[in-house]
Amino acid sequence: MTPDEFRRLGHELIDWIADYRDGIARHPVQAQVAPGEIRSRLPTAPPEQPEDMRSVLADLDRILLPGITHWQSPRFFGYFPANAPLAGVLGDLVSTGLGVIGLSWQSGPAITELEEVVTDWLRQMVGLSPAWSGVIQDTASTSTLVALLCARERATGYAMARGGLQEAGAPLLVYASAHGHSSVEKAALLAGFGRDHLRLVPSDGTYAMRAEALAAMVEEDLARGLRPCAVVATTGTTATTAIDPVGAIAEVARRHGLWLHVDAAMAGSAMILPECRPLWDGIEGADSLVLNPHKWLGVPFDSSLYYVRDPQHLVRVMSTNPSYLQSAADGQVKNLRDWGIPLGRRFRALKLWFVIREQGVEALRARLRRDIANARWLAEQVAAAPHWRLLAPVALQTLCLRHEPPGLAGEALDRHTMGWAERINRSGAAYLTPAVLDGRWMVRVSVGAEATERADVAALWETMRREAEGG
Amino acid sequence: MTPDEFRRLGHELIDWIADYRDGIARHPVQAQVAPGEIRSRLPTAPPEQPEDMRSVLADLDRILLPGITHWQSPRFFGYFPANAPLAGVLGDLVSTGLGVIGLSWQSGPAITELEEVVTDWLRQMVGLSPAWSGVIQDTASTSTLVALLCARERATGYAMARGGLQEAGAPLLVYASAHGHSSVEKAALLAGFGRDHLRLVPSDGTYAMRAEALAAMVEEDLARGLRPCAVVATTGTTATTAIDPVGAIAEVARRHGLWLHVDAAMAGSAMILPECRPLWDGIEGADSLVLNPHKWLGVPFDSSLYYVRDPQHLVRVMSTNPSYLQSAADGQVKNLRDWGIPLGRRFRALKLWFVIREQGVEALRARLRRDIANARWLAEQVAAAPHWRLLAPVALQTLCLRHEPPGLAGEALDRHTMGWAERINRSGAAYLTPAVLDGRWMVRVSVGAEATERADVAALWETMRREAEGG
Ligand SMILES: Cc1ncc(COP(=O)(O)O)c(C=O)c1O
Ligand SMILES: Cc1ncc(COP(=O)(O)O)c(C=O)c1O
Repeated sequence: MTPDEFRRLGHELIDWIADYRDGIARHPVQAQVAPGEIRSRLPTAPPEQPEDMRSVLADLDRILLPGITHWQSPRFFGYFPANAPLAGVLGDLVSTGLGVIGLSWQSGPAITELEEVVTDWLRQMVGLSPAWSGVIQDTASTSTLVALLCARERATGYAMARGGLQEAGAPLLVYASAHGHSSVEKAALLAGFGRDHLRLVPSDGTYAMRAEALAAMVEEDLARGLRPCAVVATTGTTATTAIDPVGAIAEVARRHGLWLHVDAAMAGSAMILPECRPLWDGIEGADSLVLNPHKWLGVPFDSSLYYVRDPQHLVRVMSTNPSYLQSAADGQVKNLRDWGIPLGRRFRALKLWFVIREQGVEALRARLRRDIANARWLAEQVAAAPHWRLLAPVALQTLCLRHEPPGLAGEALDRHTMGWAERINRSGAAYLTPAVLDGRWMVRVSVGAEATERADVAALWETMRREAEGG
Repeated sequence: MTPDEFRRLGHELIDWIADYRDGIARHPVQAQVAPGEIRSRLPTAPPEQPEDMRSVLADLDRILLPGITHWQSPRFFGYFPANAPLAGVLGDLVSTGLGVIGLSWQSGPAITELEEVVTDWLRQMVGLSPAWSGVIQDTASTSTLVALLCARERATGYAMARGGLQEAGAPLLVYASAHGHSSVEKAALLAGFGRDHLRLVPSDGTYAMRAEALAAMVEEDLARGLRPCAVVATTGTTATTAIDPVGAIAEVARRHGLWLHVDAAMAGSAMILPECRPLWDGIEGADSLVLNPHKWLGVPFDSSLYYVRDPQHLVRVMSTNPSYLQSAADGQVKNLRDWGIPLGRRFRALKLWFVIREQGVEALRARLRRDIANARWLAEQVAAAPHWRLLAPVALQTLCLRHEPPGLAGEALDRHTMGWAERINRSGAAYLTPAVLDGRWMVRVSVGAEATERADVAALWETMRREAEGG
C-alpha cells in the first residue's frame, strides 16, 4: 500500500469509525451470532494474490460487524466500562503509524520519556505521592503477576538468581480476598506458589476483606512455620465494587513484612475524584498497585498502569541486559523492558497523552461524577420498586440487583434472573452481565460507558422492569 | 471529541502518517536527542482544562518526532526489522475505533473467530501441519514464558493446583543455547526455575546448539537425580541467526520427555518461503513455538504468534472461570483468556487480516526473498573487501561483520568497531546495532525493513567503508 492509497483508504476508515460511533445506538448491543458463525463465513486459506481493499472493507461491514458486542454503546452495562474516546483512537493511530519499538531507551527515546511523563500525570491525578513510579502494562492480570513475582523475590532474597522457587524452604503464602479478581489466583498459580499456598481471607457483610481475619491467618501460618509473603487487596472488586480496607491491611502487611499489592484495576479511575480517595485510604502503605485507564477512565485498550514504590527492586527482578541491547545511554535512562515481562513495546503513552490533553482533568472528573450520579439514581429506583433488591452497597457505578417475585427462591429464582437478563441481551436493547453472589445469580449493572447518559439508564430501568416483571 | 471533530483531525493525522512514511528517508535514522531532553520539554503536570488539539499535533512534530528512532526508515539496519505496513496500520485503527474487548467469546465473538482464522492462515503459510493451534500474544518474551509455565506444569502433573513449585521434589531443569535470546533466561527465572536450574548447552562453530551436548547434559542430570523439564531451541538466534538443529533436539526431547519450545521469533517469518523450511526441519516434534509477524513479516506490533500442539493443556494451565465471565456459549467456543496471561484483549487479528489480504502471500514471499538477496549481495561485498570479515554464516538477512585493520586487536579493535558504528548512528545516515560475539564487539546489519531496497544496502556499504576505513 503506497502512502497515497493509505491516504484514500485512511480517510474512508476514519469516516467509517466516525459513522460507527455516531450511529452506535442503532446496533443491538450484544452480537447476534451463534458460535462458529463468523468463522464459517471466512475463507479457510490465505489469499495468494493481493485482494482489493474494497472487499476487505465490505467484509468488515458484512461479516465482522455482526460479530461485535458494542462496548462503546450507550446501552452497554456489562462487565465494566472500557471506554475508548476518539482522541485516544487518534493517539493510538499515531503510535501504529510511527511503527517505532521501545526495546531500550535508545531505540525510541520518546517512547520512554513520554511514558515517564504521562504515568506521572496519572499519579498526580489520582492523588498518589511522588514516592510512586509508574509503567504501562497491557493488563491488570499482567501487572498483578509482576507484583507477585516481585513479592516472591523480595521474600526469598532473589532466589531466582539461585534455586528459584525450587529451593527447599518453608512455603511462601499469598493472601487475597475471596472476592478478588480471578487474575489474582491466576497470578499466584503462574508465579509458582501453588493453590495450597493461596489463602482466601473471609470478608464482611459488604464483601470487603476483614483485616483482623487476615492478621489471624498470618499469625497462625507463622506459628505453623510457613512464610507469609504477599497480600492482594482490592479497591473495587469486580462483582460488587467492594472496598477492602487498605489502611488496616497495610498495617498487617507492615507488621509481618508482607508485600501489599492493591488491585484498583477498575475503581482506581475514581481516584481522580478527591471525594473518592477515602476509599483507598492507606494506599501509601502498599508496595505496588494497578489501575486501568483502559476501563472507566477511558484510554483505548491496552493501558494498565502499574505503580511501585521501589523501582530498583522491580528492575532487579525483571532485567536482562544482553549486549545487543546495551547503549551508551544506559545508566542515565530508564529501559522499560526491565519494568515488565515483554521486551518490545509500542508507543503506548501517546493515547494517554492525547486523551488527557484533549479532555483536561476537569472534564474527566465531570464524566465520572455523571456516571456515579446515574448509578445512584438507578439505585434509588431499584430500592423503591416492589420486589427489587440491591444486593450490595453501590460504592461507585456498579449495581448488583435482583428481581425477587414473591414465592420464587433457590434455583427457580436463578432461572428467573438468568431468564430476564438473557432476554434483554438477546433483544440487543442493552447488555448486562449476570454473576454469582452468595451462591445465587444476580444481575450486575455497570454504568459508565462514555456515551451513557441519564436517559439511557432510565431506558434500561424500564426495560429491566418490563422483562423481569412481565416475564 | 465529537465524531465530526474526529473526522477532521483523523483525516489530518492520516495525511500526517502518509507524509511521514513518504518522507521518512529524510529523517536521521537514530533519534538525535540526549537522555532527558524530550521529558524536559513536556509539562510536568496534566492540564486541568481541555487543550486545543492543534497544539497537541504541533508538539508531536516539535517535541516527540525528534525523539523517534525511525524503524520504518529504508536505512534502519538495527536489532531486527519491525515492519508496520500501512495496511496493518489501518487494520489496527479499526480495532481501536471499535473499542471492543475480548474477555470471552461472547464479549466480542468476531475477535475470537477472526483470530482462529488468521492464526490458521499463518500456520498454513509457514508450512506447519494442522496439528498446531495458534493464539496471538503480545511478544515472544511472553510466549516463551507461557511455554515454560506449560512445561513446568506438565512435568509436575499440575503442581500449580497443589503446592506449586514449592512442592518438595527433585529440581526441574531448563536447557537452552548460550546464544538463545535473553527472554529465555528471563522466562526461566520468572517461572521460578532459578538460574541454578538453567543449563546453557554449548554450541558449534555456527553458534548452533549441539544436540549431542544436550543429550549428554540431560543424561548426566538424570544420573544426578535431577528432573530435565524443558528445552528451548532457537530457529534464528538474535545475534547471528544461528539455527539450532530442531530435529535432533526434538529427538532428545522425545527420548527424555522434555517439553520442546522453539523460539522462531525472528526467523519464523522466513518459513513462508518453502526453500527456508529445512532450517526448522523436525519442527513437528516440538510442543510449542513462537514466531513474530511483528518483526520481518510485517504486522504492526504487537503480534506474536504462539502455537501449541496440545491446546487443552495450555487451557488447563491458563484458565480461570469466574461466574461473571461465564456464558451460555462456553464449551462450544474458545475463550482466548485461557490461552495466555492477560484477561482482556483487543481485536488484534484485524491487522494480520488486513496485511495478508492487502499483500497476498506471494508478495510477502517476494519481499522476503528480496531482503535475503540484498543480504547475500552485501555479504559478498564484505567477503571480497580487504580487512573486512563476516563472523557468522548469513542464514537469512542478518550479517555479523567487522572491519579488522592490520595490527588492531583486542580492546583496540573493540574501540575501532564501536567508533565507526557510533559515528554512523550519530550521523543519522543509517542505524546499526553492535553486539558482542565470542567476547569481541562486532556490528550486526539486519536487512529487511519494508522500505529497504538494494540501493539503500549499497549506500550503507559505502558509508560503512568510509567511516571504518577512513576513521
Ligand atoms: C478488580 C479487577 N482486577 C483485574 C481485572 C482484570 O483486568 P485486565 O483485563 O486488565 O487484566 C478486572 C477487570 O476485569 C477487575 O475488575
Ligand atoms: C530470537 C528472538 N527471540 C525473542 C525475541 C524477543 O521478541 P519480543 O520483543 O517479541 O519479546 C527476539 C527479538 O528481539 C528474538 O530475536
